[in-house]
Amino acid sequence: MEKLPLEQCHWIDEVHDGVRYGLQGEVLIDEKSAFQKITVIESKRYGTSLLLDGCWMTAEKQEKHYHECLVHPALCSSQQLKSILIIGGGDGGTARECLRYHEVEHLDLVEIDARVVEISKKYLPHIGGKAWTDTRLNLKITDGINWVKAASDESYDVILVDSSDPTGPAQGLFNRDFYKECRRILKQGGVFATQSESPESFRQIHIDTVKLIRELFDHADPLYGWVPMYPSGWWSWTFAAVDKPRYLHPILSRSKEVSKNCEIWSTNWQQGAFAAIPAFIERELKL
Amino acid sequence: MEKLPLEQCHWIDEVHDGVRYGLQGEVLIDEKSAFQKITVIESKRYGTSLLLDGCWMTAEKQEKHYHECLVHPALCSSQQLKSILIIGGGDGGTARECLRYHEVEHLDLVEIDARVVEISKKYLPHIGGKAWTDTRLNLKITDGINWVKAASDESYDVILVDSSDPTGPAQGLFNRDFYKECRRILKQGGVFATQSESPESFRQIHIDTVKLIRELFDHADPLYGWVPMYPSGWWSWTFAAVDKPRYLHPILSRSKEVSKNCEIWSTNWQQGAFAAIPAFIERELKL
Repeated sequence: MEKLPLEQCHWIDEVHDGVRYGLQGEVLIDEKSAFQKITVIESKRYGTSLLLDGCWMTAEKQEKHYHECLVHPALCSSQQLKSILIIGGGDGGTARECLRYHEVEHLDLVEIDARVVEISKKYLPHIGGKAWTDTRLNLKITDGINWVKAASDESYDVILVDSSDPTGPAQGLFNRDFYKECRRILKQGGVFATQSESPESFRQIHIDTVKLIRELFDHADPLYGWVPMYPSGWWSWTFAAVDKPRYLHPILSRSKEVSKNCEIWSTNWQQGAFAAIPAFIERELKL
Repeated sequence: MEKLPLEQCHWIDEVHDGVRYGLQGEVLIDEKSAFQKITVIESKRYGTSLLLDGCWMTAEKQEKHYHECLVHPALCSSQQLKSILIIGGGDGGTARECLRYHEVEHLDLVEIDARVVEISKKYLPHIGGKAWTDTRLNLKITDGINWVKAASDESYDVILVDSSDPTGPAQGLFNRDFYKECRRILKQGGVFATQSESPESFRQIHIDTVKLIRELFDHADPLYGWVPMYPSGWWSWTFAAVDKPRYLHPILSRSKEVSKNCEIWSTNWQQGAFAAIPAFIERELKL
């Protein structure tokens, strides 16, 4: 495809509460699936980029900021890694990072919208990469809420919720019933993790999410990083475990396998980032 | 002033390399000073906000993200706090945070552009707050480069460079000659700190700045945080010291005085944040 000169490109923005973040580029696809509006652009700065319902989801040159921070603190600290569940994550990036661990035997990727997977495979093939052809991957196009309800007790070593914001199809992934089911199906030595929104742009949702997960699991803590294309650029993930806060302590023999190719994540980064709780959040979580 | 309904407000954007960050609001002032274009808007989301040469500088409801991270790691760890120098910082926020320490006896605030100070006092009075009438403040409207050249050896306990990006009037604040002068005028037990750009949007400038400061001072380390209105939202500050990396270790008796009113900064946050070096930066700094 021939590229337009930059000055002829459009701005594609996500607008949130009087703030906008835009990338200059060409729209490649803009369609409505059964669940949401799906837009793909070719951006100058971050390569091919995906929006769902007008919100930035991922981009070729920005996806590691998000996927590494969701995946590695969980997979480096869970006692075992035989069986992994991803809810959402239809772009394949979370699955790709998980499947870098040779200990993973089976990965259920449960995405509600088949078009997100089809479009990601076609326009963002490097995000899923080898995951799409990995024999350990079990892709299920179905509702993640029903999937966790139907799953057996203590059946997963790691559960990762890789969802969009709590409106539209992801609404049911931010509430007590869903998290309770996740706790039920998590193994004793396992780790649960979810993206937990921006502490700046979705402050109350973020704090309520951390508090709720902390109440339902015995241990839970937020981790903060940077995803420039998400509202405010300041993003969070929340990790939980049943037996002890094992997500704070990466297993070093395992982390060596993955850290070499990472942009953001390292065991050093993770341990610092868990300690670096902004003052207002530390106060809120003590209430 | 009567406020326009949001739908009648304009978007005011900073554009950088195919990315834009915009706030919806009304333009209050837009003028050219002797040094730069100065714009003030009333934004819906972050209150009154300042741009210099089209780049976001600060906003009433976002300034603590920046000022706390520049000031407190330095002032909480310098051996003494008698004499402080701020280069830039014409909005007064850095001075305000410094003057919260009763140990500070004298603070030179050296800003090149008188209009930035005048406009900040008028439109953003809460950012400078009580600093503007504090008898310890010595406001000098002059070139910071000449100021440091003329200063005596080892004359400041803390030096803070609170500048805009390295183009326009701030260009001379990001080079070897300037940092060498800063090292010369810093006391033995003192701390130097500068904003050091975004590791995402200005990656090479950031890394070069950290390496240069590390070469000239005996100890230097970057710290990462979040300023949503700056390019990528991911921002950095670099701290340096001559005798030991004392900026890593806040003096707890002193930090108690300031931590109560902070949004982001706390001793816990600081110690975690210094440890949380993203993997690609850790690799670059080892080269």
